[in-house]
Parts: sequence; C-alpha cells; structure tokens
Amino acid sequence: MKPAVCLLSGGLDSATTLACARRDGFACHALSFDYGQRHRVELEAAARVARALGAAAHRTAVIDLRVFGGSALTADIHVPKGRQTAEMAAEIPITYVPARNTIFLSFALAWAEVLGASDIYLGVNAVDYSGYPDCRPEYIAAFERMATLATRAGVEGHLPLRIHTPLITLTKADIIRLGLSLGVDYSLTHSCYDPSPGGQPCGACDSCLLRRAGFAAAGLEDPLPYPPEAP
Amino acid sequence: MKPAVCLLSGGLDSATTLACARRDGFACHALSFDYGQRHRVELEAAARVARALGAAAHRTAVIDLRVFGGSALTADIHVPKGRQTAEMAAEIPITYVPARNTIFLSFALAWAEVLGASDIYLGVNAVDYSGYPDCRPEYIAAFERMATLATRAGVEGHLPLRIHTPLITLTKADIIRLGLSLGVDYSLTHSCYDPSPGGQPCGACDSCLLRRAGFAAAGLEDPLPYPPEAP
Repeated sequence: MKPAVCLLSGGLDSATTLACARRDGFACHALSFDYGQRHRVELEAAARVARALGAAAHRTAVIDLRVFGGSALTADIHVPKGRQTAEMAAEIPITYVPARNTIFLSFALAWAEVLGASDIYLGVNAVDYSGYPDCRPEYIAAFERMATLATRAGVEGHLPLRIHTPLITLTKADIIRLGLSLGVDYSLTHSCYDPSPGGQPCGACDSCLLRRAGFAAAGLEDPLPYPPEAP
Repeated sequence: MKPAVCLLSGGLDSATTLACARRDGFACHALSFDYGQRHRVELEAAARVARALGAAAHRTAVIDLRVFGGSALTADIHVPKGRQTAEMAAEIPITYVPARNTIFLSFALAWAEVLGASDIYLGVNAVDYSGYPDCRPEYIAAFERMATLATRAGVEGHLPLRIHTPLITLTKADIIRLGLSLGVDYSLTHSCYDPSPGGQPCGACDSCLLRRAGFAAAGLEDPLPYPPEAP
C-alpha cells in the first residue's frame, strides 16, 4: 500500500478524512499536533480515532504557536457561544490560528518526504468555514505547487505532491453521512472549543453548533453527551 | 518603523540577512528555531547576533522535526568532512532537513500575521546551496503566492506577503563583504555542522568549508577559532 500522511485533529472532519484515505487504499500515517491546545481531550480523541480506523502510524508533533499569541485556541481569549451559522461564516473567527494550516501542512510535507509519500489528506471545508482563508481551494492549490517545488522529490522529477481535501465542498450533514458509510464512530471524536474539565463538549461554541446542526440536518443523533442546558 | 520577521539561525548568512533588513528600515523581529539541533551553540549565536544588530524582538520557537527522522542535523547520521565545493553542490546534502524552509517560513508567516507584517527576510542562497530544493527562487515565489492566499491579510486585500532573499544570487565572498559593510560582527556567528563540545567549529564540514572559502575569496580572515589541524 502506498503511504499517505493524514492530518488528524480528532474532530469530526479529520476523522472522516482519515476514513476517506483508508477507502482510497492508502497506508495512513496520521499526524496530530500538540500546539498548546487548552484541551488535551482533543489529542486523546485523535489517538482513539487513529486506532479505530487502522492507521499504519500516528505521530504527534509538538509545536508552540503560543510564542506568537493571537488566537482563542491557544491564547486566553473568550470563546464565543450560541452564534448563528451566518454569523460564524461572515467573518474570520477569533478562533482562527495564524497560518495554522500552512504550519500543519508543512509538517505533513516533512513526514511525506521522509516516507516517500506524495499524498496528504486534509479535512478542510470551504462551506462551514468560509471565513478561514486557509480553507479555500485556491490556497490548497497554491500549497501543492509550493510543496512540489520545495522537496527533493520535486527536484528529482518524482510525482507532484497532492493534497486531498475530500470534504472541501461538502455540508456538515454530507460529511457525517459519508463518514458513517465509511465506518467512522463519531462517539470517538471531539469537536468542542470549550469542553468541561472532564472533556464533556459545551454544545454552544461555533464548533459544537456546526456539528449538532449537521447531525440534525442529516436526521441523525450525535452520539456525544452534551449538557442538558445546551441550546 | 514597519515590522519584518527575519529568520535567524545564528550563521553567517542569516546574520547578514538580518543586517539587510535593518538597512532596509524595518523593525526586525528575529525568529530562531529549537528543532532538536545537536548543538545549542547555534541558538546562543542567534541570540548574540540579534542583540548586536539591534533586533526589536527575538523569539525561539520550539518544534520537533526528529519525530520524522531523516537528516544529519537532527538525527544521528555522520556529517561528511573535507568535501570539495563541486561535490557539495552536485547533490542534495545528507544534512538536508525535510521541508525545513517551508516549516520555518510557515512559522514566520504566523508571526508576521500577528504583527501585521507583510515582509519576511530569509538568508537562502542558490549559489553555494544549489542542492537544496527550497533555496531556489521559484520555490520562494511559490511560497509568497501561497502565503498571500493563506492569511487574513490576503483575504482582506492588504499587501501581499513578500519574502526578501537578499543573498540568493550572491557568492559567499559577496555575502561577507556585504555583511561587513553593514556592520555584521562575524565573530558572533556560528556555521559549523559539527562543533566541539565547547562550541569550537570543526573547520572541515561542508558549512565550515564554504564559509572559510568565502573569507579566503574575499581576501579576509575568518574571525572564528578553527582547530590547527583543520584543512
């Protein structure tokens, strides 16, 4: 089996993307990041998902984005709750991490080069996250071109690097239906930006709301245990 | 003064590049990486150089490239000694770190975004290091394009990101002359891939040989204390 590097946060989208890479016949090398998240539960979910989906390997790279400041996911900024979907999509969220996908893809590229892999899977979505500049198809295409020029493989005339983004044009409901058809167990995943100390999702941050709306639109029940008071 | 992010390894090239950014009127935000180098002396040199050249800030980001293996600078591979320049240039050196400049530039991009900077300085050179795919002008141009698309600034129509590579077409002798004209103190820099435990450069690895040949070609004396038995 050819190797592929699959970026895996432990959330719903990245779990579905890993299942797509498995469907496509790759030996999946799952890559997570310990980047000063406030919540270790995210990394624990990534490890569970990698195991459940039969990844050939799972590595967690330690990076420190806090050294630059600037985001709710790594700095001490209030996470917005109970927003409408239109409100989330209309602006770049304060949970945006500067250059995050560029940094994550750069590490994936390093591992791909060591493995001799020319395929990377990334669970970006341009529908729910239209506010993130680095979730757009034109960004992904520009990264592919840069990455092909960056590597030994590009110089020596091997295959160009390909970044697979199987979810990029799907709605959340489509993603959930796709994942279920590929055997993803969504009870293992974690999406919340602001979980309880015990790891329970809040049900009200942008990420929980998008996820719950997706399950509702698909006519399915989200297996995660939200608090009864969640909207 | 407008801010710029300047990648600073503590070597001759990056010190000269930092001096160029200062010459160009930027408030220099120097960025170094603790990526599992075998030699702390490199990071100490970076701190000395940043101070001597009046950087507005100096941060060191911790990343772990060892998680992927694959290079003499981070893994336990023998560093070649006493090679001819033609021999170095003809192949991609084993000291090549996978995706290194892509990862370093990605972090620089993150800091630039937080600072509101649209300028990054990088001391790559396509003459001495022709074997490194990510030192070529076409790679730099592709990164600029990707980075402009990646960021909030790119979405909101601010200035495109510019990566300045003032050394890219210079010989090592030209670089040294340029640096001296801009006040660089090369006794503060560190270039060796394989220094002694006390930090003395070996004088014989590719990096030492290129540096020493540069000083010789410029008719100048390298202020570093090489061992008497070095070639």
